[in-house]
Amino acid sequence: MSKSRYSKNPIQQVAGNGLLDRRALLGRGVMLAGAVGVGTAGSLTGAAAEPLAEAPWSLHPGNPVPPYQRASRFEDYVVRTVDNQHNDPGGQRARTPHQLLKGIITPNGLHFTIMHSGIPDIDPAQHKLVIHGMVRQPLVFTLDGLSRYSMVSRIGFTECGGNSAPLFSNEPIQANLQALHGLSSCAEWTGVPLATLLDEAGVDPRAKWIIAEGADSAHLTRSVPLKKVMDDAMVALYQNGERIQPGQGYPMRLWLPGYEGNMNVKFLRRVQVTDQPGMTYYESKIYSDPLPGGKDTQFYFVNEVKSFITSPSPGLDLREPGVYEISGIAYSGSGRIAKVMVSADGGKSWAEAALQEPRLPKAFTRFSLPWRWDGGLAILQSRAWDEGGAVQPTREQFVAARGQTSKPPPVGGFPGHHFNAITSWGVDAKGVVKHVYA
Amino acid sequence: MSKSRYSKNPIQQVAGNGLLDRRALLGRGVMLAGAVGVGTAGSLTGAAAEPLAEAPWSLHPGNPVPPYQRASRFEDYVVRTVDNQHNDPGGQRARTPHQLLKGIITPNGLHFTIMHSGIPDIDPAQHKLVIHGMVRQPLVFTLDGLSRYSMVSRIGFTECGGNSAPLFSNEPIQANLQALHGLSSCAEWTGVPLATLLDEAGVDPRAKWIIAEGADSAHLTRSVPLKKVMDDAMVALYQNGERIQPGQGYPMRLWLPGYEGNMNVKFLRRVQVTDQPGMTYYESKIYSDPLPGGKDTQFYFVNEVKSFITSPSPGLDLREPGVYEISGIAYSGSGRIAKVMVSADGGKSWAEAALQEPRLPKAFTRFSLPWRWDGGLAILQSRAWDEGGAVQPTREQFVAARGQTSKPPPVGGFPGHHFNAITSWGVDAKGVVKHVYA
Repeated sequence: MSKSRYSKNPIQQVAGNGLLDRRALLGRGVMLAGAVGVGTAGSLTGAAAEPLAEAPWSLHPGNPVPPYQRASRFEDYVVRTVDNQHNDPGGQRARTPHQLLKGIITPNGLHFTIMHSGIPDIDPAQHKLVIHGMVRQPLVFTLDGLSRYSMVSRIGFTECGGNSAPLFSNEPIQANLQALHGLSSCAEWTGVPLATLLDEAGVDPRAKWIIAEGADSAHLTRSVPLKKVMDDAMVALYQNGERIQPGQGYPMRLWLPGYEGNMNVKFLRRVQVTDQPGMTYYESKIYSDPLPGGKDTQFYFVNEVKSFITSPSPGLDLREPGVYEISGIAYSGSGRIAKVMVSADGGKSWAEAALQEPRLPKAFTRFSLPWRWDGGLAILQSRAWDEGGAVQPTREQFVAARGQTSKPPPVGGFPGHHFNAITSWGVDAKGVVKHVYA
Repeated sequence: MSKSRYSKNPIQQVAGNGLLDRRALLGRGVMLAGAVGVGTAGSLTGAAAEPLAEAPWSLHPGNPVPPYQRASRFEDYVVRTVDNQHNDPGGQRARTPHQLLKGIITPNGLHFTIMHSGIPDIDPAQHKLVIHGMVRQPLVFTLDGLSRYSMVSRIGFTECGGNSAPLFSNEPIQANLQALHGLSSCAEWTGVPLATLLDEAGVDPRAKWIIAEGADSAHLTRSVPLKKVMDDAMVALYQNGERIQPGQGYPMRLWLPGYEGNMNVKFLRRVQVTDQPGMTYYESKIYSDPLPGGKDTQFYFVNEVKSFITSPSPGLDLREPGVYEISGIAYSGSGRIAKVMVSADGGKSWAEAALQEPRLPKAFTRFSLPWRWDGGLAILQSRAWDEGGAVQPTREQFVAARGQTSKPPPVGGFPGHHFNAITSWGVDAKGVVKHVYA
């Protein structure tokens, strides 16, 4: 198992500008990226030898174990960016720092959220969920009552319809990944299938929609097709094992795998079964974009196939030429990710990335590919396909279909929703990574 | 879709004392467990109607969104139990409250830990990992250096060899699930395969073991067979997406899927490649049990197939006869869970539980089964099989092979490790759940 085995079999370059074969990840020994050789083996066999001089924390007992563990103080910078910090009217958006995370699970503290009138402090013993409308028997559920039902768990993403809106700009906005794509996260949700509760209430065969309403003071209200509800909608009670977080709708939320975040009504207090949609504020005015041809994206619910590279990305610059891991996230509201291709030359050539298991439907899938950066210019891109054959559009294709705009309005960010085109990171000769259009 | 559909097709009882067919979970409408019917549909169509009187939190804007979300104050009781809270010599154990959690992911704040000399406050920029011994080129890695390597993610459990030790008692200890089985948790771990780093150092073909050492003041040291290391050992840097927690070895730990927790050396600072084990304190004295025949469990590394019911469990009493969900966790250090059987009559009859997807190797698998409690006595048990055909032993089988003891020693808990036999919960006529032997 000497290193010569690898030097005799150099890793194959499979696409332009240094992209290496993903199968090299399986063969091991791909790279000598971050190691520093140290003297001779002999100098390391004693604990007293450099570099194993005792650090201060190795010499004295450490801190007591807390009942609930928090992150190290050295990780205090790993937080969501929250706008409108005084919580003035207009809502608040908290964005996930994807550039600092790995894997597919977003920890609960860092899951994105958007609140339109702050986070209510709900007493779970007082909260009630009512199911009514076109049902045989209206029903009221307490949290305690719901806890007796059979629950299902599912790892899946939730994405705001407005995620990535800065990319509607006709000039690439210089911001980090968190600012550009941070309104998307992935967690294990556990709860009661809403279908179970609706069956118990007895749905009128003429019903076609539900209207879901939250208990926060905004009373956010959205309509959902009954077909989707009966397929995989959940009244979620748990998030990554523990009760859902206050910013996620504690004590219960509607969770709709693959449907735009705003529909996943938090603090769920009412489900009205109807034969028509409510045409509520968010579905008729906000999440309904004008199209170039004069039509409109009414009921554009599914978050379509998408991907972005999390590392390298703006702020994670390259320090020296050598081998790096290109790592990123792909997902589709329609099913599993089937394939992710990566380019280091702005789309001239592509190589297939390795996909991390498990690849779950409507969930983040982590992809990666080794890349040898030669110190020259590079444009990094990723492009995802889902199992239904849908492919992430190029920016050119997306703009042709959905348009772009020259500047943000004076209040709020760029308009436009469901941006899912290819994102490009430019690397300059100093290793600085910037958002570019290519 | 009227309720009569279900009354015409009552859910089949598939084993004694009320166990219902797991396929009923797919058919929906299983139970009218927690719902309360409310008047007529008409009385519910207005927001002013009972029971949708506006709660206080529905009337005023809520709290601002924090950069890092914490659980609701109503969940303050959902914590690990920590013994030896003054952190006196003897170590501290923090146990996961499985009776309050759902799904398969243990949130980072609630992952179990055992610390032998407190939690060190390590500066990640100063921490180093040395690989040396029987290698061609000793190497030193910083956290920054490791971040350039290709990483893998894996959802998997970690279990202390001493988990469930109270069940070595010859009388059932009256305690909740957290106290009995709380030294086991499951997370998504992301890091660099240790094989990659060893390949880079160039392992001597005569090497057979590694000896791993931690940077905390206990300098916990364990030996691991090189075969296991090259198979799936990881230098873990991330836990459920974010950097690993201080109590889990921040900034890096050895993670060995399916191997007893103590071997997963935290604060990893040294990997020495050798041709023999170190016979360290923990492997020669602590995790090495005498057997009834006079032999010993030396190098008893794998956490074997196991399961327990999380709900109902002691403290989660049943309030009234009716249908409940039996829910629990199964896992095996050898691979995937293949099957879980559940009994409500102390093992006289069994029904197959539904297994929640994804079923990942060496990870928690959530099982569930609907159960109609008639208000009489019941003894609930679960028994797991893994894909290799290994089966969780009965208590009788386990005691015959491993022994039991009459009382705990004056200091510390019950001796004995790797307890994996069936756990039994007795339900009395009042619905109170107790730990029993059956």
